[in-house]
Amino acid sequence: MQNLLKKHEVGVFALGGLGEVGKNMYCVEYQNEIIIIDAGIMFPDDHLLGIDYVIPDYTYLKQNEHKIKALFITHGHEDHIGGIPWLLREIKIPKIYASGIAVGLIKNKMQEHRGVHYNLLEFFENDRIRFKHLKVGFFRTNHSIPDSYGIVVSTPQGKIVHTSDFTFDFTPTGPDADYAKMARLGNEGVKLLLSDSTNAEIETFTKSETTISENIRDIFSRIKGRAVVATFASNIHRVQQIVEASIATDRKIAVFGRSMERTIEVGTEMGYIKAPHGTFVSAKALKYFKPHEITILSTGSQGEPFAALSRIANRTHKQIKIQPGDTVIFSSSPIPGNQPSINKTINQLFRQGANVITHSPLTDTHTSGHAGSEELKLMLKLIKPCFFMPVHGEHRMLKKHAETALSTGVKKGNEFVLDNGDVLAISNNKARIAGNVEASSVFIDGKGIGDIGNIVLKDRKILSEDGLLSAIVTIDEEKNRTIGKSVIVSRGFVYMKDHTALTKEISHMVDQHVDNLLKKENKLHIHSLKKEIIRILNRYIYNKTERNPMILPVIVTV
Amino acid sequence: MQNLLKKHEVGVFALGGLGEVGKNMYCVEYQNEIIIIDAGIMFPDDHLLGIDYVIPDYTYLKQNEHKIKALFITHGHEDHIGGIPWLLREIKIPKIYASGIAVGLIKNKMQEHRGVHYNLLEFFENDRIRFKHLKVGFFRTNHSIPDSYGIVVSTPQGKIVHTSDFTFDFTPTGPDADYAKMARLGNEGVKLLLSDSTNAEIETFTKSETTISENIRDIFSRIKGRAVVATFASNIHRVQQIVEASIATDRKIAVFGRSMERTIEVGTEMGYIKAPHGTFVSAKALKYFKPHEITILSTGSQGEPFAALSRIANRTHKQIKIQPGDTVIFSSSPIPGNQPSINKTINQLFRQGANVITHSPLTDTHTSGHAGSEELKLMLKLIKPCFFMPVHGEHRMLKKHAETALSTGVKKGNEFVLDNGDVLAISNNKARIAGNVEASSVFIDGKGIGDIGNIVLKDRKILSEDGLLSAIVTIDEEKNRTIGKSVIVSRGFVYMKDHTALTKEISHMVDQHVDNLLKKENKLHIHSLKKEIIRILNRYIYNKTERNPMILPVIVTV
Repeated sequence: MQNLLKKHEVGVFALGGLGEVGKNMYCVEYQNEIIIIDAGIMFPDDHLLGIDYVIPDYTYLKQNEHKIKALFITHGHEDHIGGIPWLLREIKIPKIYASGIAVGLIKNKMQEHRGVHYNLLEFFENDRIRFKHLKVGFFRTNHSIPDSYGIVVSTPQGKIVHTSDFTFDFTPTGPDADYAKMARLGNEGVKLLLSDSTNAEIETFTKSETTISENIRDIFSRIKGRAVVATFASNIHRVQQIVEASIATDRKIAVFGRSMERTIEVGTEMGYIKAPHGTFVSAKALKYFKPHEITILSTGSQGEPFAALSRIANRTHKQIKIQPGDTVIFSSSPIPGNQPSINKTINQLFRQGANVITHSPLTDTHTSGHAGSEELKLMLKLIKPCFFMPVHGEHRMLKKHAETALSTGVKKGNEFVLDNGDVLAISNNKARIAGNVEASSVFIDGKGIGDIGNIVLKDRKILSEDGLLSAIVTIDEEKNRTIGKSVIVSRGFVYMKDHTALTKEISHMVDQHVDNLLKKENKLHIHSLKKEIIRILNRYIYNKTERNPMILPVIVTV
Repeated sequence: MQNLLKKHEVGVFALGGLGEVGKNMYCVEYQNEIIIIDAGIMFPDDHLLGIDYVIPDYTYLKQNEHKIKALFITHGHEDHIGGIPWLLREIKIPKIYASGIAVGLIKNKMQEHRGVHYNLLEFFENDRIRFKHLKVGFFRTNHSIPDSYGIVVSTPQGKIVHTSDFTFDFTPTGPDADYAKMARLGNEGVKLLLSDSTNAEIETFTKSETTISENIRDIFSRIKGRAVVATFASNIHRVQQIVEASIATDRKIAVFGRSMERTIEVGTEMGYIKAPHGTFVSAKALKYFKPHEITILSTGSQGEPFAALSRIANRTHKQIKIQPGDTVIFSSSPIPGNQPSINKTINQLFRQGANVITHSPLTDTHTSGHAGSEELKLMLKLIKPCFFMPVHGEHRMLKKHAETALSTGVKKGNEFVLDNGDVLAISNNKARIAGNVEASSVFIDGKGIGDIGNIVLKDRKILSEDGLLSAIVTIDEEKNRTIGKSVIVSRGFVYMKDHTALTKEISHMVDQHVDNLLKKENKLHIHSLKKEIIRILNRYIYNKTERNPMILPVIVTV
């Protein structure tokens, strides 16, 4: 960065969150100080076969470890806190600041990563955290988890405001957003605004959580059987609304799914989930209640194959079977790409006689945690930034958000649609793209961090489509010829027991070909033998089957 | 079936199309006659790794080949005609009847399956095809391809009407639907109606193709650069509308993508695509025209990785690069599950400076080819069936459609939501589920029909997530011990060049373990040796990496 920034410039950059929804991580750097905002993970899409999570490349932070003053957490969602243990394994962070339920969720998470040291401090909304040059403050926002905050970094070049994820909910189920503080920031002058672009393409004002809560209560009072509700465990407001609706309609609640159990546990402990003693019952106790006295609260609103609702739907859940009269309510909306899995779950539920209610304009069982374009305009009008950098979204969302900003008065040329790693340098009244730092994606698979690269992923892709065929040839090095017959094994190609003729043909062909090659040459070139086996098998198998399994030749010399 | 149906009963069943959108195939059987309606394929979902198509199991038809009188094709879409070559490879069908563009598309398709004999006859809307007991007639409908027909099978037990895919488009871009014939059928009395359930859950009346066509023309006249339009090649009406919009705004058209080229070719040949000479230009000729004189018509509206638009978006298309001022119009809507791929394409197009217009209530660049619930009610009111069997849809769509039928006057208990293979037996004024015939899914992968089963798919799934590790152990049978070091190879697991230590450890462990086992036993049990290798490697690798690659042990004996 020394090369990129001039001494008086403030650098702002993202290591994750630009051009994607997930792994949020934004940094502010001035001279010898770096402030990090959030450390999220991203859940991989279908192309990343077998990958568990994606995190940012922390190389730049590693190289500048001595500058890092603190990590600030805006709220407790995985795309904002999930990267903390991975970050801490590589880099010493002197202080992590978080607030309210995020503190509980981080502590809970760190229990799974014993041995990783962390120094977690709680901030409150009117705190000011001071470093040598930089100063950090907070303002309360509305979002789908309690204790969500926007962050203000005061720098020698002016204030930088980061909204993080937000909506404007005028009838929230928790405390109000701090409109006054946002307006005051705007009046005092804000140099740069970073704002949530997730719903920048959606024209409507996001509906209030309270509306959804009323709809759910209404549905609960009308249904005569068991209410089975699937929602995001991360949406703690929603979970509490479902709990309240159950209490209001005299239903006991049984909770299924590990993440939902954790939400109830942490939420109850910290006072966010409130219910009279005896509201929650175990699966075993359900038999003591009539159907209309029961709420089943579960994970699986995205049709995730191993989530509680999916197991209930496909009859593999040990404790819960669908019974006629059950109503399943999806208090969620499909994340792009999940629709087929959700459809499958719904079809299975219908087949077993359940009634299914999904979110639609008619039922309104879900609302987003992100601001639509009208709310984004309100934020822009309150903060009135000089420069604008849309964050938290795919490229087209960022682009749309930048257009929205221009329409509210940000000057043309003062909007910056950036990629991860791009460094925006701010000085006095100028902003420029100063260059970029390393900010690619790092894949986590099992215990491995970053050891799965493109070669392995490409192999998995081929394996997934046409499987693999391996030919093991044994060669007598002295006599310079094959011994016995080559062994042919395959997986994911064709079911070999049904294709003994094909296997024999392949084995015979490989042996002949290898022997011919050995006769021609005096010396054994294992590498070229392997290449030859791949070449002839590729052609032969494609002609026979129109498939391209991965060919894995193995030469054993004795 | 002899066991299932009484002599006077008419059997109606689906081999595909119930509980799914795709591979439509409906059969009517009476005594020694079977009439087949449509022979479609289904495109596999993401779970069917590497599978090209899915077709119905034709076993029942094979067993009753002598009864089959004819195959009737309702229209030329792949989910109705795509199975024809596969069906004909197994079963002799005396006559295939199709109409209009479906005839051209079937002929075109059969060129890729040389050697498969077929007898294709064209029907016209007022034809009646008579067999000994059964009689077949047609009525014109509206759908997203010209020459779409509903089918009437007159049986000794009354008329069976199959709508096939339809909308009611009161301002169609082709001929009107034959309302009068449908109403007459209803008045004369219809025993059973089979009707399209694709959009049964959608409350609105499907918009007219003419509206979309006007919107596209409007967009074309407003944009100043090149118009790049992506749509379904199968929607020949739409393609013609885009051609007309181009002519009206003085644009030449360059066509990209094989299926789109085929649509233009077959459509032009048969008179469905009409354009003055010189309207279509080659990619090379584009340089002679100004941007506002150019339309690029391409495949790829679903973000398919190798389609023309995707290659244009990711800069791998040889002839077309996005240039500033281009407007890309998606005249399509996302098929569930494709949204992430489409988003990726859109993001890439935006990054290269294109403007992108997708279908939304504001832009209205697409309409469905399937009836919404209000249109379904109109069909039910016209046909007034005694019995009702929703077809062409996932289970929940069928269920919704059955409810809709009850609301229009079908008697409770006369609606039949069936699964593929279920046989509905109709007699006089009774209908009963008589049992079922084999109707599972058959997978096509390359040249193989049905040779990919669940074992292979399960292997592909494991391979795709954690890859494979193979240990090749060479054993000297005489001395009853290993020779040399075992060879460890892997693919899709970890990149082995970075893990030589791990490879050595595994090899060493395997050799030691095998030698110990060999010492204990006098005789070589290859099967139990393999099982042991799998067991110890599974445990060892999981502990080291938290991954579960497929373990493939190979024992070479010399």
